Amino acid sequence: MSELVSITSTIDMKIDKPYLIFVGDAPDELAAKTSFGVVDWCKEDCIGQFRLPGCAADLKIPDLNMEQAAERGARTVLIGVANRGGVIPESWIVPLTQALKCGLSIANGLHTPMNSIPAISDAAKSSVGTLIEVRKPSGADHIATGEPRSGHRLLTVGTDCSVGKMYTALALTRELKNRNIPADFRATGQTGIFIEGSGVPVDAMVADFISGSVEQLCPAADPAHWDVIEGQGSLHHPSFAGVSLGLLHGAQPDALVLCHEPTRTNMRGLPNRSIPDISEVMESNLQSARMVQPKVKFVGIAVNTKHLDESARNAYLTGLEDNHQLPCEDPFLTGGKSIVDQLV
Amino acid sequence: MSELVSITSTIDMKIDKPYLIFVGDAPDELAAKTSFGVVDWCKEDCIGQFRLPGCAADLKIPDLNMEQAAERGARTVLIGVANRGGVIPESWIVPLTQALKCGLSIANGLHTPMNSIPAISDAAKSSVGTLIEVRKPSGADHIATGEPRSGHRLLTVGTDCSVGKMYTALALTRELKNRNIPADFRATGQTGIFIEGSGVPVDAMVADFISGSVEQLCPAADPAHWDVIEGQGSLHHPSFAGVSLGLLHGAQPDALVLCHEPTRTNMRGLPNRSIPDISEVMESNLQSARMVQPKVKFVGIAVNTKHLDESARNAYLTGLEDNHQLPCEDPFLTGGKSIVDQLV
Repeated sequence: MSELVSITSTIDMKIDKPYLIFVGDAPDELAAKTSFGVVDWCKEDCIGQFRLPGCAADLKIPDLNMEQAAERGARTVLIGVANRGGVIPESWIVPLTQALKCGLSIANGLHTPMNSIPAISDAAKSSVGTLIEVRKPSGADHIATGEPRSGHRLLTVGTDCSVGKMYTALALTRELKNRNIPADFRATGQTGIFIEGSGVPVDAMVADFISGSVEQLCPAADPAHWDVIEGQGSLHHPSFAGVSLGLLHGAQPDALVLCHEPTRTNMRGLPNRSIPDISEVMESNLQSARMVQPKVKFVGIAVNTKHLDESARNAYLTGLEDNHQLPCEDPFLTGGKSIVDQLV
Repeated sequence: MSELVSITSTIDMKIDKPYLIFVGDAPDELAAKTSFGVVDWCKEDCIGQFRLPGCAADLKIPDLNMEQAAERGARTVLIGVANRGGVIPESWIVPLTQALKCGLSIANGLHTPMNSIPAISDAAKSSVGTLIEVRKPSGADHIATGEPRSGHRLLTVGTDCSVGKMYTALALTRELKNRNIPADFRATGQTGIFIEGSGVPVDAMVADFISGSVEQLCPAADPAHWDVIEGQGSLHHPSFAGVSLGLLHGAQPDALVLCHEPTRTNMRGLPNRSIPDISEVMESNLQSARMVQPKVKFVGIAVNTKHLDESARNAYLTGLEDNHQLPCEDPFLTGGKSIVDQLV
């Protein structure tokens, strides 16, 4: 079956914008967190949301059905909701089939492939729209070389998973562009790929091609250009360190930004493992990155301070700056300006 | 199509022995190197070879056709030959279809899946034999925890790819068993999986599950038991270091053996990158392994000395022992005895 339906790989494709965001019957806002991330970062590309009865999330953009969205120029329906077990519920099938009938593509980040649903697979065969499986990279079989390449690259790395690596990379890209410095955000996870419209789902790659796919994501560029690459996991997280190391080598960064959440007491998903020391994380990242980029250095620390009040935040950031002699800020609040100052 | 034919994952299966080894029309012995590796290490499990006209490799075991192999008790046909591009040539289809008709399974390590050939896929549907795709692990979705577990584990690591990590692990397992120490070889690559009849093809895993699949490969065991795990790649090889790190964390080794080929001048496949210093490779492996096993240590250095004459070999091994204060030997020549002495 799978050979009959057009599946596009995320490694060599663009997800066409603008988007209709499919929020479905999200039971709460957390289930739609990908949708909120997309609207936060590229609201201009989101012409509407599609919600089913009972949906508990609202992106505060127009509610449109598939016909309306197509009429207003939407190109792709983004599945921006996670549901239990990653399966596609019965109630989604009619609207998604309708989307294809209207000529829209569907970009899917769930584990269940769209074409495993016969009605959707059939509708795709006679649609100009395509099914884009963000978790099923294909055609990515480049083995990394580690050879030096032109252009500048910045990678966000973390003391743990989910500490703000995507947010920081997006904020730094925006700040660079504000200063008319040529820069591109390079997405490595599902939400980032939706926001940018392209990228590599690095944690879904076949192990042998982790670094190679990242080399393809941020190839040789103009010497003045910055690729700002979204990090994944942590070199110190035993579940995912292999992914983080492959990403670090493929990125060949000349600049690193450490991302940290200071109130966390244990590594995500591992109650018995404490968060590593910041200096230790910086040293291990530098040591590993030097293999492909001897001049690599840290240019700042991005701190997710949402659980600190203002005085605690200021004290924490000042102390951190004194300790590490690097700009330390929360890019959610201040946009990464001090880090970009250091970079340029 | 793929859902109709029984595909067994290598992560939770045994490849049934004994084997008929399919050497096909191998143009030279190098193309059949997997076959030779299997015969070297489990000749007693190989009841014959199947060769097509023009085959330039000879495993020196009986030539049998599919019927004869089935009559003599063979259970699985191993595809032990690599051909250009990893495709399955026309000339293989009749004999492989015949194998399934005789009730034999087929274990395939090529990139092309067996069931992509309609005649083979059809024959599999009516056979008691199954199609085993060694490069297509399925059902492996365990996220590693890094939690301490019982039993001893030894991992072979390398200064580069293809320096003898599988050979060393097999030799050490054999030597442990000779001394009545409970031990198992844990395979992580195609040839090792064929030899052992089970294992995890770690370089074909989805990136998120590298470490988790290795945790499943060598789970908690009796405190006196040794799992001897086949390493892959090198922490210092920029194409594959992510795989090596994920494997190192999943293995949670208490003992490491460094594998080295002293005449190599550059990293495999990377003409511009020199081989790293042995001490540096040992230090980086120890540092990374301590995250999951603080007591990890090296117990020896296994040197592939096939390109050294006897006096050069002896001088090299003696110098290495003096430098590192560890047993250094070529397990191909001396079976890893001094390393096992150090281990126990």
